[in-house]
Amino acid sequence: MDWKVSECGFDAGRMTTNGNKYMIGNGYMGYRGVLEEYGKDQLAAVTLAGVYDRAGDKWREPVNAPNGLYTVISCDGEVLSVLETEPLAHTQSLDLRTAVHRRETMFDIRGGGRVTLTAERFVSMNQLHLLAARWTLHCTVDCRIGIMTGIDGAIWDINGPHLFEQQSSSAGGVLLSTAVTGELGQQVAVAELIAFGTAEQAKRVDAVIELDGGTALRHISIEAKAGETYTWCKYAAVFTGLDGEGDPEEDGPDERAVQTVQEAAATGYGGLLEAHRRKWAERWSRSDCVIEGDDEAQFALRFSMYQLLIIAPTLSEKVSIPARGLSGQVYKGAVFWDTEMFMLPFFLHSDPEIARNLMMYRIHTLDGARRKAEEYGYLGAFYAWESQDSGDDACTLFNVNDVFTGRPMRTYFRDKQIHISADVVHGLWQYVTFTGDDSILADGGAEVIWECARFFYSYAYYNPVKQRYELLDVTGPDEYHERVNNNAFTSAMVQETLKIALQTAERLQDKYPAVYNGLAESYADGPFLDEFTDMLAQLYVPQPDPNTLVIEQFGRYLQLEDVSLAELKARVIHPNEYFGGGNGLATTTGILKQADVVLMLYLFKGQFSKDVKRVNWEFYEPRTEHGSSLSACIYALVAADIGLPDWGYPYFMRTATVDLTGESKQYVGDLYIGGTHPAANGGAWMAVVLGFAGLQYDGESAILNPSLPQAWESVELPVVLRGGSFRLRISREEITVTAAEGNSEAVTFAGFGGEAELCPPGMQLRLRA
Amino acid sequence: MDWKVSECGFDAGRMTTNGNKYMIGNGYMGYRGVLEEYGKDQLAAVTLAGVYDRAGDKWREPVNAPNGLYTVISCDGEVLSVLETEPLAHTQSLDLRTAVHRRETMFDIRGGGRVTLTAERFVSMNQLHLLAARWTLHCTVDCRIGIMTGIDGAIWDINGPHLFEQQSSSAGGVLLSTAVTGELGQQVAVAELIAFGTAEQAKRVDAVIELDGGTALRHISIEAKAGETYTWCKYAAVFTGLDGEGDPEEDGPDERAVQTVQEAAATGYGGLLEAHRRKWAERWSRSDCVIEGDDEAQFALRFSMYQLLIIAPTLSEKVSIPARGLSGQVYKGAVFWDTEMFMLPFFLHSDPEIARNLMMYRIHTLDGARRKAEEYGYLGAFYAWESQDSGDDACTLFNVNDVFTGRPMRTYFRDKQIHISADVVHGLWQYVTFTGDDSILADGGAEVIWECARFFYSYAYYNPVKQRYELLDVTGPDEYHERVNNNAFTSAMVQETLKIALQTAERLQDKYPAVYNGLAESYADGPFLDEFTDMLAQLYVPQPDPNTLVIEQFGRYLQLEDVSLAELKARVIHPNEYFGGGNGLATTTGILKQADVVLMLYLFKGQFSKDVKRVNWEFYEPRTEHGSSLSACIYALVAADIGLPDWGYPYFMRTATVDLTGESKQYVGDLYIGGTHPAANGGAWMAVVLGFAGLQYDGESAILNPSLPQAWESVELPVVLRGGSFRLRISREEITVTAAEGNSEAVTFAGFGGEAELCPPGMQLRLRA
Repeated sequence: MDWKVSECGFDAGRMTTNGNKYMIGNGYMGYRGVLEEYGKDQLAAVTLAGVYDRAGDKWREPVNAPNGLYTVISCDGEVLSVLETEPLAHTQSLDLRTAVHRRETMFDIRGGGRVTLTAERFVSMNQLHLLAARWTLHCTVDCRIGIMTGIDGAIWDINGPHLFEQQSSSAGGVLLSTAVTGELGQQVAVAELIAFGTAEQAKRVDAVIELDGGTALRHISIEAKAGETYTWCKYAAVFTGLDGEGDPEEDGPDERAVQTVQEAAATGYGGLLEAHRRKWAERWSRSDCVIEGDDEAQFALRFSMYQLLIIAPTLSEKVSIPARGLSGQVYKGAVFWDTEMFMLPFFLHSDPEIARNLMMYRIHTLDGARRKAEEYGYLGAFYAWESQDSGDDACTLFNVNDVFTGRPMRTYFRDKQIHISADVVHGLWQYVTFTGDDSILADGGAEVIWECARFFYSYAYYNPVKQRYELLDVTGPDEYHERVNNNAFTSAMVQETLKIALQTAERLQDKYPAVYNGLAESYADGPFLDEFTDMLAQLYVPQPDPNTLVIEQFGRYLQLEDVSLAELKARVIHPNEYFGGGNGLATTTGILKQADVVLMLYLFKGQFSKDVKRVNWEFYEPRTEHGSSLSACIYALVAADIGLPDWGYPYFMRTATVDLTGESKQYVGDLYIGGTHPAANGGAWMAVVLGFAGLQYDGESAILNPSLPQAWESVELPVVLRGGSFRLRISREEITVTAAEGNSEAVTFAGFGGEAELCPPGMQLRLRA
Repeated sequence: MDWKVSECGFDAGRMTTNGNKYMIGNGYMGYRGVLEEYGKDQLAAVTLAGVYDRAGDKWREPVNAPNGLYTVISCDGEVLSVLETEPLAHTQSLDLRTAVHRRETMFDIRGGGRVTLTAERFVSMNQLHLLAARWTLHCTVDCRIGIMTGIDGAIWDINGPHLFEQQSSSAGGVLLSTAVTGELGQQVAVAELIAFGTAEQAKRVDAVIELDGGTALRHISIEAKAGETYTWCKYAAVFTGLDGEGDPEEDGPDERAVQTVQEAAATGYGGLLEAHRRKWAERWSRSDCVIEGDDEAQFALRFSMYQLLIIAPTLSEKVSIPARGLSGQVYKGAVFWDTEMFMLPFFLHSDPEIARNLMMYRIHTLDGARRKAEEYGYLGAFYAWESQDSGDDACTLFNVNDVFTGRPMRTYFRDKQIHISADVVHGLWQYVTFTGDDSILADGGAEVIWECARFFYSYAYYNPVKQRYELLDVTGPDEYHERVNNNAFTSAMVQETLKIALQTAERLQDKYPAVYNGLAESYADGPFLDEFTDMLAQLYVPQPDPNTLVIEQFGRYLQLEDVSLAELKARVIHPNEYFGGGNGLATTTGILKQADVVLMLYLFKGQFSKDVKRVNWEFYEPRTEHGSSLSACIYALVAADIGLPDWGYPYFMRTATVDLTGESKQYVGDLYIGGTHPAANGGAWMAVVLGFAGLQYDGESAILNPSLPQAWESVELPVVLRGGSFRLRISREEITVTAAEGNSEAVTFAGFGGEAELCPPGMQLRLRA
């Protein structure tokens, strides 16, 4: 089975999308899929997780570090770069299994002869600060090879500059580039070291060091011989002031960076790669999902999982996953609801520790959410629509420029997408349900849940005539319809939050009474459990119409103009016009940006009949524009749920290939909005495992209702439930569950609608259709 | 003192605005200030009050009748029309005292010599269906004069056509043009008759009749003699199927029209004019307000009162006054809040019977308001933002075209300006207060009041944290900020509605117990008085900030961008761009369309200190764009109230001259939006009498706190209070109150903050400063 993403030939038009497609990373940093000679104009970037900076009054965004792998080769003074010379042959590839990037390029050189370059690189999954690369160079004639390599201190920024006091130095063969961020004065240090393949080759090397601000370059000159192959390795390390935070004994980022490359060189490329590969093998062993019968789907799914694995915060519980992963600064490097709703399930099933980090991030940012609630006059916690390090909302009030007037357009993403607080609670409770680890509740989770419930209580209004609580003036997932009343999805999420808030109280009273009493005391003046109970009993959540079964997306949605998507698109007069906002084309029609009611049907699938799901799928599907990459996977999931996987299959493929095809929008005007789509990547996994394989775990039993697309024979994957490891193989006829020997408890499984059966440690269970 | 509006010389550029400025009318119909030779392209129109028609799916609008005064003169085959020939001299004038329009035009004719035409006309205030005109023609040489005159059946329509089956006929010297309206099939009939000045002249007349659809023309030929003057009169009558409605014995509109012109001819022009003048003298005797010391203000005020007198519904309690009066079809001929809030005060003080008609109109349209409330899911009565004959809302969801895209823009005038129901209640209670006539409550007024209160109860939401009712998602007078929460003006109006609803209950229980019991029974299931009491006690109405005294216009208004009006206007990139709507320039700033908080300070002046009024005047005044003609008068009123009449004077003059200068916007794109501005006219009167003269009647005492502009010596006017007539003369030093002999009761007056004193019938009271 193929694990390799690759393409032959160089196409300048694909530079930007390939930067995403061939990305490597390890959760500490992302390294875009650039070629070694690329600079900031080609969007080369080493994007650091959780390090943010604000320049002037521009958007706050992640910091990109200087590029320690920067290298430009020349031959007899002629630069051998795809940016300057058409290569004779070129291949770029990425091995998904090991997260190793490779390029091989062959150039004709003046006066005859050819030079072939190969460069392999990885961002170590074993030593998270480390980047390593191995080069080979082969020439068919004698020539003078120039290697300009070192640290490129010219940074691609969307709203920079972020690095100040950029300096570089060279000592003991190590280059060092240091800087401090503008807003918070965080140090950023990158060290680099180069080692030649053989002592013989090293001897023939002649190097000049050039230091210019944050850029430190070696100009190496080799008198190369025809037929000979030259090999060298580069090690780069990145540290910031945030690493080892709170430990004044610790060395500074610069010293640690230098030390890291020295140690790396001592270990050598082979050893580093081996350690890196072992880590990756371990990650895949916990997550790889095998689809039998559909190579294309298999490949797209693996690519999607790979994208999640390279950005997962393995090290820190203070960072989460931004909406564009670590592929750059797009969307301010901010964490959206994408993480809880579309990425968390993958980690919950495969690597609960990462899931815990993701949820701890929300606990650490509770104060930011409290500040936001207070700013708007509410109680409790109103989580940021775009969350960075502090949890204050990075989302601006004007997010889109009107293409007709060039004016910034007021949008209400920040103000009205209150479901974000419910999404956080949902994620937390999913974590508790899957892992059984309720210590997270005592560690701040309960406070998050209750503050969110308090926020909703203060946001809600009571309708005295209809005798119910309503959630007014909200924006649901369908952002083309802002400021609506009683959005079904939002109301259902708030209802869940209230239930969870009450369940949390029971759990804490039972298991952590001291924590409970402390918090309960702080809420003595309410609103607290009594108010939550009252609101839950009387909260209005739109239900299926008794005649049509359609659930109205929000109050008076059905009064909007009912046009087809084609008709709406025929009204477009500017290719980049935004369908939402004040006067957007969709706003007065029933056309949705993305799954909204249908997302609710997925999340609360147990509460709705198959008829209701099917009617609403069929009603909303033709009305959905899929203007968000979060939309398609939901249609796949619900299609599988209603037994129509082949309706869902195209939506799954659309989701799973979004970063492979590069067909998503890359620029709006001159603003780059491309990057990877981790929510879609997570959605692809969800479609396969939670949709087609039909796995559903409620904390007690794992239910499996397979609904496989036509071509699929089976789906096989490992899952972790309540800390125990299981291997599942799901086909149309049979489900096999194998419990690991080391599991501490039995878990019950039920398949094909049958009775639940216990699967004790070390046992295998077969469930037949 | 001058009562004449006039101008010399013909300026084609002023044709449209002069159509408004020189308008005549009698409440049954309006006749634009056109010249006799004008047709539909010059916006000639005979606009009928209360007759509406809808063509296709276009806006419903008033019906214009064929023009029975249409006349084109020619001399030796050359047309003598300002539209074709530059006149040698031309004067157009309007006598405000008698509502008689006059034009005099002199033409050079080919081959030397001159012809002078004069035409005088009036719309009879004595016989409301009748139009009459008197012509003279004088020539300095012998020539052949052609008079093409009759009924012009070509109608100026904005969203027509409205007249179908147009036919004309001639019998017994009377021309008749008939038609039926498209939507409701109402008959419209216009008859015309011409009579020459002397039998001698009549003999020399040679006439050919031309009938073409609804157009009926006489081609009259006169062999005119040098130095002789020719005189003729024209009588035209207009009837519709709505006249004499419900009386099947009554003749049809065509027969009545014919009969009316025949009777008119028998009476003769002089007699008709005399009867008309007597009616006007009587109207003026009840309303004329004299300003001593400021001729300019006096003239503008009289013009304003004139405009109200020509459109007041003297005949019917089923029509009210549209926002553009009877000056055409602009704004769909619809009745807005303008009537209750800006015009009613004039009629309450001068002609309470007309005030009763205006309020009965709202009682007759209650069912339409009920239908609107039900359409939106509310209880009670939600009055139409744009009300026509049935009370259903004529306001469309898309009211403005976006100048940048040409697309219709969604506005929320119809959906969210809920204050309209409170404005109606306010008007009704003002009527009861001023007249003491509470029979109107028993005649349907109580039901209107309670249904409006029930509407508000169902519209309101209870905030459980803040423990108060709030009015969410409303639009106040400042339409640049749609869909806001807790608009201070709206909340204060709703508060007043609830108070009135409870007072109405007391009044009815006391005086009309049977009516009370009947209605109360129908509201047995509530919401009714208990709920009103509860809501009144807990309704949130924004109050002055304790530190700044500023009353926030609505929730989070103060968070909007605080720009100056000049700065905002500097951002304009298209001259006709709308400041409100989805993306309008003002929407995200603090710039207001019109007085909003300041209007509240006027209406509830007793509830706010002078400091609060002054602070808010000064705060909001520079932020007000005055995009509505309803704005300026309110700033004048509050300036007078805080003792700063000279701050208010320019606002008064702006209000009072709006239709004299013609400076208001006439076209948006190719859509005519001009016409008269009766709300501004009413506002001008309010500024003088309720502002500068400082009259305030609360149902018990009339308080007079003069606040006269610098140049003004005194203001003198008649008023009717509780059915009694009083003449007031207000100067800085002294107020004289003279009670008519025939008054049935004494009324107390208080001036200059002094004690109230009784003014019994036939007595004069002097109050000194």
